Amino acid sequence: MSAKCRVEICFSPAEYALYQENFELVVVIDVLRATSAICTALEYGVERIKPVASVDEARDWMKKGFIAAAERNGEIVEGFELGNSPLAYIERAEEFLGKTIVLTTTNGTKAIDIAKDKHTVVIGALNNLDALTSWLIERQEDVLILASGWKDKFNLEDTICAGAIADVLIESGDFAADEDSTVASKFIYRSARDNMFAFLKASSHRRRLRKLNLNEDVKYCLTPNNLTTIPFLKDGYLVKLIDREIPIS
Amino acid sequence: MSAKCRVEICFSPAEYALYQENFELVVVIDVLRATSAICTALEYGVERIKPVASVDEARDWMKKGFIAAAERNGEIVEGFELGNSPLAYIERAEEFLGKTIVLTTTNGTKAIDIAKDKHTVVIGALNNLDALTSWLIERQEDVLILASGWKDKFNLEDTICAGAIADVLIESGDFAADEDSTVASKFIYRSARDNMFAFLKASSHRRRLRKLNLNEDVKYCLTPNNLTTIPFLKDGYLVKLIDREIPIS
Repeated sequence: MSAKCRVEICFSPAEYALYQENFELVVVIDVLRATSAICTALEYGVERIKPVASVDEARDWMKKGFIAAAERNGEIVEGFELGNSPLAYIERAEEFLGKTIVLTTTNGTKAIDIAKDKHTVVIGALNNLDALTSWLIERQEDVLILASGWKDKFNLEDTICAGAIADVLIESGDFAADEDSTVASKFIYRSARDNMFAFLKASSHRRRLRKLNLNEDVKYCLTPNNLTTIPFLKDGYLVKLIDREIPIS
Repeated sequence: MSAKCRVEICFSPAEYALYQENFELVVVIDVLRATSAICTALEYGVERIKPVASVDEARDWMKKGFIAAAERNGEIVEGFELGNSPLAYIERAEEFLGKTIVLTTTNGTKAIDIAKDKHTVVIGALNNLDALTSWLIERQEDVLILASGWKDKFNLEDTICAGAIADVLIESGDFAADEDSTVASKFIYRSARDNMFAFLKASSHRRRLRKLNLNEDVKYCLTPNNLTTIPFLKDGYLVKLIDREIPIS
């Protein structure tokens, strides 16, 4: 019997340094809403997404004629007309077809930036759960799941999604987990999966988004498997993964 | 109606800076085994405990004639004859009566050190759950629970204990929580409370201690309310709290 691959979960970018060693494949997730929006935009025809860390950088790209999206604290930043609502990318799919979009968000793009030196960085969400986990199982490589959290803190929705990914990988029989963060996430996912919307009632970011009238966005982001796109980071851009495009690290 | 006090949970010393603002009362926990041992030692007659960060420092105190205890990675450090087993403090209670003990451990004493500038630092464990929570409720002050974790990472046993403390405070009606870390810990505690030993089966530190034949220690540490002592930090020493000794900050 060959040794199992590892799958572990890091709760936020602040802890990345403690968990990243020995992993060359990182799955970045930010369920509410950056990575859900990235998966959606690429599935609905956006050619590529340039994640940038700062609003200033996004503004610079906008001045050069690019479509730029910026979100901070759940809201579209002043001076931009696009944020990280996945539904907005569906509504404007025709306009965005084949385009490059520059994106900065409160947490998600920061997490992508912190992982960018790894051999393989892919984007996860509940929306692409089956597609992503099938690909990971086929790949047979150690997997670190990096939750974007909220301003470097633990958050519940990313933990549920990370737990879902880990659960599928472990249940396949080919993966095992050592860290208590992974054990806890898997447990929380299993407790939440039958009604994630209700489970997240008390979560801090759902309260934040409810105040902003973004319940429809939340419901969309909590819908597993309405997408099949796996975005991956290639030369600084997020693009749609085409099968076996990434050599094993 | 007056505003509720806050109770929040920080999963490890690595995240303390993100959570500590506005709190002047910190409860430090390290269920396996430092804070369980501290509560036990003081309850069984040790006069005071000097927590120190390094093994070298503990050795220096030993040379000066103090009883010194040192644990790293679950084991007693070479050259010492005492670690953080609570049962050892019970067995040797007569010998230790009225004594000062210097203590350094992998995680717990580091967490105490990081919180030491707060107005009030008290020590929590499952062993003193009722005594501690009754005192906190009477006190009516914002409470930050700092889990020691494992080498700056999240761990399950501290999360369960932190969740237990938060649960009692919130159920009292006088406290509320905002952070997802608190919501998740409370949920995990409620899922685990009826059989914590089994729930922790998969946890990394229980596996570590099982290898070291420390299952009896684990069972003791997971027993709620076999102690009533609340240790608190006074001029660099952990001593038994005598009612109302600490002025409100």
